[in-house]
Amino acid sequence: MPKPIYVLNGPNLNLLGTREPDIYGSATLDDVRDLATKQATELDLEVVFRQSNHEGEIVDWIQEARDQGSAIVINAGAYTHTSVAILDALLGAELPVIELHISNIYRRESFRHRSHISRAATGVICGLGVSGYALAVRAAADLVDASNTANG
Amino acid sequence: MPKPIYVLNGPNLNLLGTREPDIYGSATLDDVRDLATKQATELDLEVVFRQSNHEGEIVDWIQEARDQGSAIVINAGAYTHTSVAILDALLGAELPVIELHISNIYRRESFRHRSHISRAATGVICGLGVSGYALAVRAAADLVDASNTANG
Amino acid sequence: MPKPIYVLNGPNLNLLGTREPDIYGSATLDDVRDLATKQATELDLEVVFRQSNHEGEIVDWIQEARDQGSAIVINAGAYTHTSVAILDALLGAELPVIELHISNIYRRESFRHRSHISRAATGVICGLGVSGYALAVRAAADLVDASNTANG
Amino acid sequence: MPKPIYVLNGPNLNLLGTREPDIYGSATLDDVRDLATKQATELDLEVVFRQSNHEGEIVDWIQEARDQGSAIVINAGAYTHTSVAILDALLGAELPVIELHISNIYRRESFRHRSHISRAATGVICGLGVSGYALAVRAAADLVDASNTANG
Amino acid sequence: MPKPIYVLNGPNLNLLGTREPDIYGSATLDDVRDLATKQATELDLEVVFRQSNHEGEIVDWIQEARDQGSAIVINAGAYTHTSVAILDALLGAELPVIELHISNIYRRESFRHRSHISRAATGVICGLGVSGYALAVRAAADLVDASNTANG
Amino acid sequence: MPKPIYVLNGPNLNLLGTREPDIYGSATLDDVRDLATKQATELDLEVVFRQSNHEGEIVDWIQEARDQGSAIVINAGAYTHTSVAILDALLGAELPVIELHISNIYRRESFRHRSHISRAATGVICGLGVSGYALAVRAAADLVDASNTANG
Amino acid sequence: MPKPIYVLNGPNLNLLGTREPDIYGSATLDDVRDLATKQATELDLEVVFRQSNHEGEIVDWIQEARDQGSAIVINAGAYTHTSVAILDALLGAELPVIELHISNIYRRESFRHRSHISRAATGVICGLGVSGYALAVRAAADLVDASNTANG
Amino acid sequence: MPKPIYVLNGPNLNLLGTREPDIYGSATLDDVRDLATKQATELDLEVVFRQSNHEGEIVDWIQEARDQGSAIVINAGAYTHTSVAILDALLGAELPVIELHISNIYRRESFRHRSHISRAATGVICGLGVSGYALAVRAAADLVDASNTANG
Amino acid sequence: MPKPIYVLNGPNLNLLGTREPDIYGSATLDDVRDLATKQATELDLEVVFRQSNHEGEIVDWIQEARDQGSAIVINAGAYTHTSVAILDALLGAELPVIELHISNIYRRESFRHRSHISRAATGVICGLGVSGYALAVRAAADLVDASNTANG
Amino acid sequence: MPKPIYVLNGPNLNLLGTREPDIYGSATLDDVRDLATKQATELDLEVVFRQSNHEGEIVDWIQEARDQGSAIVINAGAYTHTSVAILDALLGAELPVIELHISNIYRRESFRHRSHISRAATGVICGLGVSGYALAVRAAADLVDASNTANG
Amino acid sequence: MPKPIYVLNGPNLNLLGTREPDIYGSATLDDVRDLATKQATELDLEVVFRQSNHEGEIVDWIQEARDQGSAIVINAGAYTHTSVAILDALLGAELPVIELHISNIYRRESFRHRSHISRAATGVICGLGVSGYALAVRAAADLVDASNTANG
Amino acid sequence: MPKPIYVLNGPNLNLLGTREPDIYGSATLDDVRDLATKQATELDLEVVFRQSNHEGEIVDWIQEARDQGSAIVINAGAYTHTSVAILDALLGAELPVIELHISNIYRRESFRHRSHISRAATGVICGLGVSGYALAVRAAADLVDASNTANG
Repeated sequence: MPKPIYVLNGPNLNLLGTREPDIYGSATLDDVRDLATKQATELDLEVVFRQSNHEGEIVDWIQEARDQGSAIVINAGAYTHTSVAILDALLGAELPVIELHISNIYRRESFRHRSHISRAATGVICGLGVSGYALAVRAAADLVDASNTANG
Repeated sequence: MPKPIYVLNGPNLNLLGTREPDIYGSATLDDVRDLATKQATELDLEVVFRQSNHEGEIVDWIQEARDQGSAIVINAGAYTHTSVAILDALLGAELPVIELHISNIYRRESFRHRSHISRAATGVICGLGVSGYALAVRAAADLVDASNTANG
Repeated sequence: MPKPIYVLNGPNLNLLGTREPDIYGSATLDDVRDLATKQATELDLEVVFRQSNHEGEIVDWIQEARDQGSAIVINAGAYTHTSVAILDALLGAELPVIELHISNIYRRESFRHRSHISRAATGVICGLGVSGYALAVRAAADLVDASNTANG
Repeated sequence: MPKPIYVLNGPNLNLLGTREPDIYGSATLDDVRDLATKQATELDLEVVFRQSNHEGEIVDWIQEARDQGSAIVINAGAYTHTSVAILDALLGAELPVIELHISNIYRRESFRHRSHISRAATGVICGLGVSGYALAVRAAADLVDASNTANG
Repeated sequence: MPKPIYVLNGPNLNLLGTREPDIYGSATLDDVRDLATKQATELDLEVVFRQSNHEGEIVDWIQEARDQGSAIVINAGAYTHTSVAILDALLGAELPVIELHISNIYRRESFRHRSHISRAATGVICGLGVSGYALAVRAAADLVDASNTANG
Repeated sequence: MPKPIYVLNGPNLNLLGTREPDIYGSATLDDVRDLATKQATELDLEVVFRQSNHEGEIVDWIQEARDQGSAIVINAGAYTHTSVAILDALLGAELPVIELHISNIYRRESFRHRSHISRAATGVICGLGVSGYALAVRAAADLVDASNTANG
Repeated sequence: MPKPIYVLNGPNLNLLGTREPDIYGSATLDDVRDLATKQATELDLEVVFRQSNHEGEIVDWIQEARDQGSAIVINAGAYTHTSVAILDALLGAELPVIELHISNIYRRESFRHRSHISRAATGVICGLGVSGYALAVRAAADLVDASNTANG
Repeated sequence: MPKPIYVLNGPNLNLLGTREPDIYGSATLDDVRDLATKQATELDLEVVFRQSNHEGEIVDWIQEARDQGSAIVINAGAYTHTSVAILDALLGAELPVIELHISNIYRRESFRHRSHISRAATGVICGLGVSGYALAVRAAADLVDASNTANG
Repeated sequence: MPKPIYVLNGPNLNLLGTREPDIYGSATLDDVRDLATKQATELDLEVVFRQSNHEGEIVDWIQEARDQGSAIVINAGAYTHTSVAILDALLGAELPVIELHISNIYRRESFRHRSHISRAATGVICGLGVSGYALAVRAAADLVDASNTANG
Repeated sequence: MPKPIYVLNGPNLNLLGTREPDIYGSATLDDVRDLATKQATELDLEVVFRQSNHEGEIVDWIQEARDQGSAIVINAGAYTHTSVAILDALLGAELPVIELHISNIYRRESFRHRSHISRAATGVICGLGVSGYALAVRAAADLVDASNTANG
Repeated sequence: MPKPIYVLNGPNLNLLGTREPDIYGSATLDDVRDLATKQATELDLEVVFRQSNHEGEIVDWIQEARDQGSAIVINAGAYTHTSVAILDALLGAELPVIELHISNIYRRESFRHRSHISRAATGVICGLGVSGYALAVRAAADLVDASNTANG
Repeated sequence: MPKPIYVLNGPNLNLLGTREPDIYGSATLDDVRDLATKQATELDLEVVFRQSNHEGEIVDWIQEARDQGSAIVINAGAYTHTSVAILDALLGAELPVIELHISNIYRRESFRHRSHISRAATGVICGLGVSGYALAVRAAADLVDASNTANG
């Protein structure tokens, strides 16, 4: 069985579906977990799905993924805009990375336009709501396949 | 039959597969057209697929899509960074818009980090290579469905 | 008969009256043409009234006006903010130039506050809706008269 | 009889016609008053025409216009670039406001390109010399009419 | 008798000698008036010496100097950094202008480094304490002489 | 009897309760005066309560407070963002200073985020509506007490 | 009994009274807790009073307050200037928020002038020392009352 | 026979010799064509000499040169400062590129100092008037030779 | 026995030797611990050597060092560039502080050029690889000695 | 006899009177030397008068003045805007320093507005032509006297 | 015999051919001297060819060229980006000036994009390697001829 | 015997021990020379120790070190912040380079935060006083050893 895809969620995403639903929609993080898992299962893959409000814990998990995962899908929430530590962890992970945002951050306040972690991302998906998670899992799976093929 | 999805490509994308393959890959624009068409067909949809080096022509086509299309997938190439005219046309189109980039523009020169057209995009997909086109067509189709459901 | 006044309109203005009517009002570009023509006729003048989505075509027309027109009224739309080519064409035209905007661009997004072409304008009229066209034609006519008097 | 249009002039405009005539022309402020009054009379309107070098006095007058006027035409001179107090007074006046400049401020020093008060203006007329005052009075009258019609 | 030199002082200079003496010294504005008058008397000149906290009043006085004075020495205090109105008045005065600061503004907070009025000054004297007033009166007198000689 | 607390109000605050009530609320400046006076009376203090649209007059009053007051509560309105003269007057006053804003200026337009006068303030209270005046009077009284104790 | 007011303190505030007493004073965080509790008791309210050096923990607590508290008083310390995660948590809390700083941050180094969290604050109190906590609790209580009245 | 050198001219250069002759001199674009052709003939080379006001057309021609030319001399006129599309076309052409300006753009307005296309140029020649075209053709020929030698 | 020197390491340094060895070298963090300990032992000193991915934990440790350590050597990793909380903790520690970077951060991406914590550092050592740790321990020991001598 | 005043002149000032006389006037540097010497003689002082095009030589001379001079008058020419070395030498000299410019640098190109050396100047005199040298020598003499009196 | 053309070279150019040959090529400065001399001889001209690491010495030589030369070709090396003194010397020389760079500075680090001396250059040649020197000498000769013709 | 280490000192460092001792300490440059020599001797190395106020001379010496030295320790003083010429010389030297500052430049004025030469430094040591020279010599020696080993 291949290594799982890590789907990591940053601060306040545990409130998904209840916080500012006009921006983030009404699906909860449990719904998102189901969505990602279902997509992964279709592809015969597993996901490790987590959320934390702690920057350091997200760094820990990226380091864990470096050993035990095949790819990372990350919605770093507010840490997208402020965390060089997460950027460095992703750079060090040497895995395919899909950066994901539920809303289109480029239509929001200007301080949300800058993403530190894009420098470490293979690809970026934003503004497609929670269904972006399914696309991201699929894209991550494709990148893992491509990488295996290239090295195989 | 529903209105087609417009897939519009900006300057120099006609050279895809031959120009800077380390950045853009080796698939040609004809390959991309096939990929997008195939994805659309799976969803019982049509695509209108075009490329132009002329900013004004892209504006013309967006206006055409406004009347005759159901959604727009746009890889505006270099005009992403310089064209307010395309932004305004997209704002006026009142359709779901997926902005697409083959490479991750946030890992390239800093002047490629700013996208004028993101202000008019529902979602953004970048860095996933030409397979981003298939994801974009699918995402556009979902947005059309959601919109129809909301209004239906 | 004096040379006509060129009234040139930039990208997306062909959608006037249908696009974002809360910003631009409900009059169409044909209505504007009538308004400008009527004002010109009152002053025993002709107008050449055109619209294009193509930056290069607007440059072509300014060069044409340089030979065959007496003044230029220009609503360059989005090219106001991005086109040095239009600026240079206007600088080279050596005619009275009225820059016109239907909405007050200074109350909109900050990237719409900068006008490249103001450097080449004799005067600027903005925020007065489509009736600004009538004022602009009148102002252009006055400038032509003043110029003729000064040289006459 | 309708309420008058306030035509307010900022610092150093009392020197019009004598100060830097290559920029501002040779008409005096009395000439301008006559011009504005004549245009108003043609439209069966009155103008209240004033000039002050004092920012606070201009704020006072805008507050007076709020009660006793139907519209404001304002050439705030140097305070255009530095006064938030005048901006706030205009925002609070809830009247049609035409911002006016005799010269094209966008062709002058860069610190004259920024107008604080444009945020409160319905429209802007600049670079048309003192005849801009007549256009401004006419435009203000039109805006009052439109407003009355909308509310009538 | 030649026209007097206007020595104009801006906001808070009436507190000189009592306010922040470590920056501005212990001489009062009356002392400064005596110093300037004494220097002028030695040169067979008169000074008009004034202070105001009101930007508009300083503009009024510069306009008065334009008619009745031969040169202007101005310590505009805080208005140095914020007043375009005073700049415009000085530009319109068409007289020699000496800008004066008691302290060296370039060693203080950065917002005090920018002087709007330097654009209208013939010369600048700063950091020499109140004795700068005597130097400024002398320099102004020299400029008047030079101007008279050139035109005489 | 101790010296009174000066409560100074800047431009357009005389319109409080009528101007933009969604931002500033419906209490009038007379209501505010009563509120501040009542709070002061509870503390056995007097307030001197004033409003002006003139920057220079506010400077005059701060200088008066320097001699005759024990503390200053100041809502400088628009001059908050543009006046170095008021800053300098406050710096020279050598009294406790409470800067007050009715609305939270940090949630408004970005040019309202910069306060010149904060450099001279002991404390800042903003966003608490007109009841901020009562808090400010109380805080000012505490600062006077603390100062007296320290020096007593 | 009403829900308690959460009083949350950020990094290094546990050292209050010992760290840089010339800036922060000599009262300890326990003193502050007593002060806040005493003020709350006078108003028949409870406070939940906490301190953490961990950004994520503060986010957790704000989420807790969202369910179990009626208002938030927050002195985020250094996270004021760097944390978008705390901003987002506060935005999601949908409670009255008082931002508090013991010192006047606008008189300190420039990187301390920017507060991320002001965008989510109802009001801001700064520079009033530890007694600002009592004012903040009172202001928070007033906001809760006003909110209850509006909804009651 | 070797492939020709493409000499491409941007917007408004068709007016050369008539527009702003104090900046651009009195030679016409036909004169320039003759000059370039003559220089090429001396070197046993051909030139393809074109001018367009349309950004897209210049992109088209650069793509044509990519197949059918040996080098590009480009005076992109105003598009120098605004066109990323031309930059990308030049980057994709994989040919020697000489960027040319008739006037010294570094002595003109600051917005003319930035060249987008310099990133794709082998060399830059500016300020040498129309004779710069002869130098550029010669330099391009040398670069082609050097390239052939290196690969031969 | 003197108090130990705290050697604190920030996020991702636990991966030292495995992550991006071209930048950081092949020594592991255990190797570094040995190196620092050996150097300390030579100087008859102890080190407390720690690593964390959590900003808050590093703040906790600096506070611990404040009580129980004699000096701090800190390689804050990515938090160097983003953490004001660590800066404040170091400022509050009132100990000699050596800031350390394994690579020369000034030769890397520009966002790595800014160090928040340099404001609290006595000295900075960067670019000398892991042997910088030995130099830093020695420098810290010298600073402790100098401090003891000065106070002894 | 007191120590002499050093009058130091920077690059290109040896061309005074011949270079750009519309900016710098027609007096030569020898004329300036005579002027400065004459003024000094009147005050029973000597001047050491020098010019160099070499930044390092000016640093050498300032160090010499530190030992052998009583004050420095410096017209650093172009090094005013670029030399931190001269700034540091002046800071180390611990003498009264008068910075002098013949033209008003604030009316020239913007890169001439910034003076590095103003941070080390007691006072600045600019725009008064070569007669500024006499004023500067006098001002320097006054500063030496004041210093002697304070220390005497 | 006409006056010679001065070919001046700035810091580190004496290492040409040995320093960073991938950027600057393998020709030495002696090779360049020969190249320039040969080109000059073909045109019946002489060159004065020099190199210095000293900014002041280059200023001296430009002043010498002012008297004894007919034109200046200058590769100022690093001083291009930092020297206003060289700019001023060139402005004062009143000769044709060709600024030359061996590499295309616009493709290198951003601090190499700004040239101080371009403001004084008639023309700029960059990126053409050492053969740019031959082009520059030719261009300088043409400019001298044109100047002589105009004045002859 | 190995090639010596060049220890180069920039402007004003000859005044060490006498200039601003609160910043730079009381050791003289001779003391520093002894310190560096002693450290080198312990390592069986020689140092070439020099100081100059002339930027060009420092460039000369770096070029000399390129031939005759094994490493460079450089305290460029004020030229750190302004000299690209020294940067280029160091880049061309292809030797280990230790940049050294006696004080912590990041705690001083902001214009001292930028180092041009860090781009060419292997490592940086700052803020450790004159004992930084000993550490720098040791670090340079280690780098030479490492380099020899790698190549040996």
